[in-house]
Amino acid sequence: MVTDASTRLDDVELDADPKTAAINNSQIAYALMGSWPDATMRGRNIAADSRFWRDDTLGCEAHRERVLAQLRDLVSVGTPLLAFPEEFGGAADNGANLAVFQELFLADPSLQIKSGVQFGLFASAILHLGTETHHRRWLPGALSVEVPGAFAMTESGHGSNVAGLATTATYDEHTEEWVINTPFRLAWKDYLGNAAKDGTAAVVFAQLITRGMNHGVHAFYVPIRDENGEFLPGIGGEDDGVKGGLNGIDNGRLHFDHVRIPRDHLLNRYGDVDAAGTYTSPIESPGRRFFVMTGTLVQGRVSLDGAATVAQKAALSIGVTYANQRRQFDNAKSGRETVLLDYTRHQHRLIPRIATAYAATFAHDELLREFDAVFSGEHDTPERRSDLETLAAALKPLSTWQGMDTLQEVREACGGAGFLAENRIVGLHHDLDVYTTFEGDNNVLLQLVGKRLLDDFAAKFKDADARETARMVVTQTAARAFREIGLARLGGLATDLGNPARSVGWLREPDNQRALLAARVEDEIAEIGTYLARFVKKTPAERADALNSQQDRLIRAARCYAELIQWEAFTRKLESFDATTDDHKVMCWLRDLYGLGLINRDLDWYLLSGRLTVKRARLVGSYIDRLVSRLRPLAQQLVDAFGYGPEHLRAVIASGAEQQWQDEAHAHYEQLRASGQMPKPEPRPKRR
Amino acid sequence: MVTDASTRLDDVELDADPKTAAINNSQIAYALMGSWPDATMRGRNIAADSRFWRDDTLGCEAHRERVLAQLRDLVSVGTPLLAFPEEFGGAADNGANLAVFQELFLADPSLQIKSGVQFGLFASAILHLGTETHHRRWLPGALSVEVPGAFAMTESGHGSNVAGLATTATYDEHTEEWVINTPFRLAWKDYLGNAAKDGTAAVVFAQLITRGMNHGVHAFYVPIRDENGEFLPGIGGEDDGVKGGLNGIDNGRLHFDHVRIPRDHLLNRYGDVDAAGTYTSPIESPGRRFFVMTGTLVQGRVSLDGAATVAQKAALSIGVTYANQRRQFDNAKSGRETVLLDYTRHQHRLIPRIATAYAATFAHDELLREFDAVFSGEHDTPERRSDLETLAAALKPLSTWQGMDTLQEVREACGGAGFLAENRIVGLHHDLDVYTTFEGDNNVLLQLVGKRLLDDFAAKFKDADARETARMVVTQTAARAFREIGLARLGGLATDLGNPARSVGWLREPDNQRALLAARVEDEIAEIGTYLARFVKKTPAERADALNSQQDRLIRAARCYAELIQWEAFTRKLESFDATTDDHKVMCWLRDLYGLGLINRDLDWYLLSGRLTVKRARLVGSYIDRLVSRLRPLAQQLVDAFGYGPEHLRAVIASGAEQQWQDEAHAHYEQLRASGQMPKPEPRPKRR
Repeated sequence: MVTDASTRLDDVELDADPKTAAINNSQIAYALMGSWPDATMRGRNIAADSRFWRDDTLGCEAHRERVLAQLRDLVSVGTPLLAFPEEFGGAADNGANLAVFQELFLADPSLQIKSGVQFGLFASAILHLGTETHHRRWLPGALSVEVPGAFAMTESGHGSNVAGLATTATYDEHTEEWVINTPFRLAWKDYLGNAAKDGTAAVVFAQLITRGMNHGVHAFYVPIRDENGEFLPGIGGEDDGVKGGLNGIDNGRLHFDHVRIPRDHLLNRYGDVDAAGTYTSPIESPGRRFFVMTGTLVQGRVSLDGAATVAQKAALSIGVTYANQRRQFDNAKSGRETVLLDYTRHQHRLIPRIATAYAATFAHDELLREFDAVFSGEHDTPERRSDLETLAAALKPLSTWQGMDTLQEVREACGGAGFLAENRIVGLHHDLDVYTTFEGDNNVLLQLVGKRLLDDFAAKFKDADARETARMVVTQTAARAFREIGLARLGGLATDLGNPARSVGWLREPDNQRALLAARVEDEIAEIGTYLARFVKKTPAERADALNSQQDRLIRAARCYAELIQWEAFTRKLESFDATTDDHKVMCWLRDLYGLGLINRDLDWYLLSGRLTVKRARLVGSYIDRLVSRLRPLAQQLVDAFGYGPEHLRAVIASGAEQQWQDEAHAHYEQLRASGQMPKPEPRPKRR
Repeated sequence: MVTDASTRLDDVELDADPKTAAINNSQIAYALMGSWPDATMRGRNIAADSRFWRDDTLGCEAHRERVLAQLRDLVSVGTPLLAFPEEFGGAADNGANLAVFQELFLADPSLQIKSGVQFGLFASAILHLGTETHHRRWLPGALSVEVPGAFAMTESGHGSNVAGLATTATYDEHTEEWVINTPFRLAWKDYLGNAAKDGTAAVVFAQLITRGMNHGVHAFYVPIRDENGEFLPGIGGEDDGVKGGLNGIDNGRLHFDHVRIPRDHLLNRYGDVDAAGTYTSPIESPGRRFFVMTGTLVQGRVSLDGAATVAQKAALSIGVTYANQRRQFDNAKSGRETVLLDYTRHQHRLIPRIATAYAATFAHDELLREFDAVFSGEHDTPERRSDLETLAAALKPLSTWQGMDTLQEVREACGGAGFLAENRIVGLHHDLDVYTTFEGDNNVLLQLVGKRLLDDFAAKFKDADARETARMVVTQTAARAFREIGLARLGGLATDLGNPARSVGWLREPDNQRALLAARVEDEIAEIGTYLARFVKKTPAERADALNSQQDRLIRAARCYAELIQWEAFTRKLESFDATTDDHKVMCWLRDLYGLGLINRDLDWYLLSGRLTVKRARLVGSYIDRLVSRLRPLAQQLVDAFGYGPEHLRAVIASGAEQQWQDEAHAHYEQLRASGQMPKPEPRPKRR
């Protein structure tokens, strides 16, 4: 970040906005609740119910037991069934289901993910990959948790590369059975919730082989333990042991030694074999079939995106509340010690992250609406599904990383107190950690997004000679043109040269922010695409090498794309506020803080691409400073609007205790002073 | 980071260095061991001894018991006494003591910090703040751990602001006793190792009050528990409970209700009272006295800097080893899946962090040497002490943040496996977390460094009218001059315009890297200093406000200063390598990667300050790409040189198991293929 003391905004009047504003919390709080406010409240009520709280004093075993019991309690509340059909007690309401689910993070992330495994993966696989018989046979047990189940997709050797799974399901037409087999150690199913202890069945993903042909990965329903909790014959496993977090879940490994299951245990919605072993599928292309079958995984990504926004908001609620009460080091003005949030360093650590949490929350709500539109069947087209998958693949990495970053910054900003479990932050941080790599590794997901962006770029030039056109167009972009003439001219041509207020006004224009953030993505993708176009006629190995050479850059561009999506969602959300109110003004400040923060982080790119003049670039940091100091008095209200009370946060330092203790200490000294009993300070020696 | 596909270095020959090099591991490993190689080996041997290992399966209570037993075992090994005088069984070797200590991180960070509390804080306070009688009376018990002791400095209300401690020690001349008292809740001693359970005594820091005068914070030896582990009368406390890490340590709170201790329990080296209550001190100024008494805390900071370099190296040893064995996604060239470290994204995640770990290690060794020079008494001058404190205050924040960053990146780079305790990363990460805020909060320490830099800047202009001169000088700096004319001219004047090789050559010159990194600090400090000079004659409140307005920027400048120190240390260390060898060449690449990485991160600053031309700036990222790909084949050797074997790392994924399993999987498919039993893939449907 570049700021410049010599052009600090104290010295120049840069915009006409007042120094502060009065906001209406309930209005903002409602906007933050998103499109399923009732479901969100239901989720928050569960998180506020002590039955569902995490108990930090429990060891791993006891924690697991508590979470299993909580999972069953959750069934009695009814929310886990929301997404299931009415005939199974549900409401077929996908959006509401996830709106509840994401709030469970504040009960205990272990409970959240345990319920995600049971209902979102195990039962959902039966629902989405199975057919009517399967639903009637297995859904009741799954939904009542009479049958805790594992979702046995990942193997020790294959996480991101699901198509490469090594477990086989070979059809034996003599007995009309499937033979499930684990050929080597890396083919063990691994990291599965419910596998180490509780699971009595599993949906096992394996290569379907019949008549000597491999039809790719399919799902099979496999009972794994008997009523005494012992593995069934041919099945073995291991406990994954202690983990970095989520220790209320019994993650473990499973392996299968020629385990036989009946033919109809194949979840056969997208592929089936008849008694004789003939394979049929409603989807002709094995590639497309694979993507359709794994497409339901998007639900997990959408839900983690939501959980990550909850993590950000909870962390900031704790961190800002404490920073507004905690004092350290004498203040010459007040005679008391200084409140932490009055330090500009502390402001810069917390306030921009509030803006990020707002952006992430608004973007998540759009994602959830799109998810609901597709999964409800209302808008279930291949194009919408594909867009939904790209959107989820973009937002889940971004928000989980933001969540980790915010939790860690808040942890440190609370000092030693932040390190105590009683203040909640470390526990949430440890649990959230794995959200960055499960249900799609963040880097792998962003690479998918990047490839989609490249495809879209290439598609623009389909009709003409793709390579040549692309090359020409890129050469003509402003970016390239600027690059050729260098920054020199640009600086000279800019009409706002010498007028900071006009520069700031330009930076505040949403259209300009959008254009900058979009250029950051589009120019990069255009350059990468143009580079790759040179290799179109080369060998697959050469093409792969060329793509690999751009991988780091491509993933960064995809992240910038995700950030643009968050910025856009924030900007769209502004329309829901009355433009004449302070609420609207403050939301604009927050949006500007988010957008300009992104631009400031990549300021070198904006300068080198010629997208920003030197004059404007220099003002970005200064205007951010101004926004931060303007938002400082509103910080508490802005985090209170997240809607989390002490029953959700359960952090001693955010309970008001700190304020009470500070007041007690202050009163003590006031009284001592008044009574004349205050010891005199030792005088400083006189200088000689 | 800005790179540019159109000027990728594949297309231009940029330097004459070969594509790869053969290095001599033992030479590099020895350089990394630092100035106390024997002590380092002793420390590593302890870390490799299963008696001292952490057991992840233990709950909090059992973990605490194990660590207390280990602490006593450590005494029998003898190393904790190294820094103590020979008459108490020590060797008066401060450097060797810390060289051992920092390696204990890989035994169990809880054991490391528990021993730090007992020997480095509790016993050290008796040694450094007490006098001969105290040494003879209390050191034997402390050093044998017969008396586990707490270092009762921090209070719930005061961590960073030690001068503001609220606990009082009031002298009662009638009984010749001290009355230790806790006036309110925030004055409870807090976060103290040994306080919750094991400690039977404490060194308590309190405001010394005698005859109605407060002489500031002094240390008192206070027994706290009887032989049955019960608190002595007037003393109470609480367990801090579960923490984010270091759960083998019984951190807790203590409070004192008018607890009386004999007069000679004041550790009286720097301040004493006679029977009648008259206070005397060899240090006249209360301010200087305070800094001398708290000056021994620097030992903790030096040791944490060392531990943080160990954390970085262990994380990278695990992460790079796994990345060289783990495979995911088919590779068109090899027919097998691709090794993770062959992905350029993965290279960019790990390889620059190897360079950082080298820089941090070499800088730490210089810090340790300086610490030893001062604490041995060999060079114990106020100036050297002050420099040592600044150096430690700069490096400890930087290396602990680097350690956290590297552990987290490695955690994610290892996917789900990285989240399992059996692979060690999460445990080390959780434990290291608090290193960023204890023994001096990182931001507070960097602020101290920043203020020192400002003082040095101001001192340059002492003779003339400080404000005016400073203003003038800054106006004349190159930075300002460039700013006035804009970047335009610079780009045009640069002699290397249009010649990438010459630009890269310029960037590779150590003098140029140094000048850039130094300018990043000096220009910033000069600007902040000049701005603050305007307020010299203002009120203290206005001056404080002005400083606060620059705080965020000042702390960032201080961090850049710490990075410059690491870069300088790396550069000095290059001299120990024969310049004709590949070792030297590779170390130069690593140093360049570290230095250019810093420059690349702040590229916007270098552009806006005119310190880098557009042409050169654009090549920084490209040359980093080249260095990374050149170092890729050496990555394993570079982490092996850290010297940690399986007995130190104790991570299943770095044990060779992954390689064995990958080979097993590969052999399985090879055999299947050879036997003709491999199922055929389902053919893709023909396009219609």
